[in-house]
Amino acid sequence: MGPLATSDFYAKLIARTPAEHDRDHLAVVMWADPGVPDRVSSIVDETDEAYPALLHGARTLRDAGATHIAMPCHTAHHYVDRLQAAVGTPFVHMIDETVAALGNAGTDVRRVGLLSTRGTLAANLYQPRLARAGLEYLVPDHRLQEMIGNAIASVKANRLARARPLVEEALVGLFDQGADVVALACTELPIALSGSPRVTDDRVVDPTDVLAAAVVRRCAGGGAMPIT
Amino acid sequence: MGPLATSDFYAKLIARTPAEHDRDHLAVVMWADPGVPDRVSSIVDETDEAYPALLHGARTLRDAGATHIAMPCHTAHHYVDRLQAAVGTPFVHMIDETVAALGNAGTDVRRVGLLSTRGTLAANLYQPRLARAGLEYLVPDHRLQEMIGNAIASVKANRLARARPLVEEALVGLFDQGADVVALACTELPIALSGSPRVTDDRVVDPTDVLAAAVVRRCAGGGAMPIT
Repeated sequence: MGPLATSDFYAKLIARTPAEHDRDHLAVVMWADPGVPDRVSSIVDETDEAYPALLHGARTLRDAGATHIAMPCHTAHHYVDRLQAAVGTPFVHMIDETVAALGNAGTDVRRVGLLSTRGTLAANLYQPRLARAGLEYLVPDHRLQEMIGNAIASVKANRLARARPLVEEALVGLFDQGADVVALACTELPIALSGSPRVTDDRVVDPTDVLAAAVVRRCAGGGAMPIT
Repeated sequence: MGPLATSDFYAKLIARTPAEHDRDHLAVVMWADPGVPDRVSSIVDETDEAYPALLHGARTLRDAGATHIAMPCHTAHHYVDRLQAAVGTPFVHMIDETVAALGNAGTDVRRVGLLSTRGTLAANLYQPRLARAGLEYLVPDHRLQEMIGNAIASVKANRLARARPLVEEALVGLFDQGADVVALACTELPIALSGSPRVTDDRVVDPTDVLAAAVVRRCAGGGAMPIT
């Protein structure tokens, strides 16, 4: 979907793999189709117009030999159950993995701030899972949500310097509202923060990295490397 | 082949693509198989043991719909003509593109230093092409070649801090021998230099980036973005 988000995921997958030689790494087949119709309008306007392109991608990966599929786009997870049923290849579910990581983050983590697209919020991808994990959630108000939309569009246009202060301000907004941690629940957002001190703030959770570590655990038959 | 080299190429491809939105980017299908047998011994020992895995990868890309294939591994270019004939999909040839860029670099560029694997040197991939472009070449002496081999292995083990001084010293060695420019003719080497002042030295040529720009010119129907 977003090419930079795909690239960021692949780099994190490599970094999370314990490896001394090429052969220690996972074999990866990647389908990066920037022409998938807009996932947000596909969900919010109920057109489902993104689904056929996602299905084609999942089938291509299966036919190329993929044993597991990771999809570093939160919004597209609206379609993950349909996709998995259609292709028969298990997905490593980014939102399940992120909520599990949040649930294990410690007893002082009760309220999770969600920075995501409107589509991810509308598709209710995080909210019921967080509730089942005993966690509350906070979403941005209208002004902060607009800011996040602008930040995501700026990353997609490779204007990271424009995106970064928007994401930093939205983080402050959610922490001020009482969030104990904030999930960067759109895979463009960790890219906006590259170079920011927030990258090492352990109250900021990066689902792209959580997904990378989960894929390594699932596929490499060993633990993922710690973040260094 | 080398996962970091593949990731580096994909990031450079995105950076070289003029884009405001996801849909402006190229659709990419990537086959990243770190289990391809060692290309250097495949050539130096004439076992050709890397070829079947390369052929499988090229076929997978073709069958997934690739219209062009880029292979960000110099040494594997030993097999590029055989691969292209077998799968029928045109390769964007990293070494042809790099030599063309060197040939257009200006009249003060006469002697090209080659930092590469022993396999790339043994396969004679650069030398005749440089001669046809009217350029001379220099290769490292035994000590510097060992150093480059260590640097490449260090990148593959994700030990970039160990690799960087080795590559910097090899660059100095080739400049001292009279090279006007040096080609980082192994795709692990630009990664070793990330963060080094040499990255912006216009006497250091990065074939990974040359390949990325060539793919954009060939596939995106427009010019590649300048380096910023």
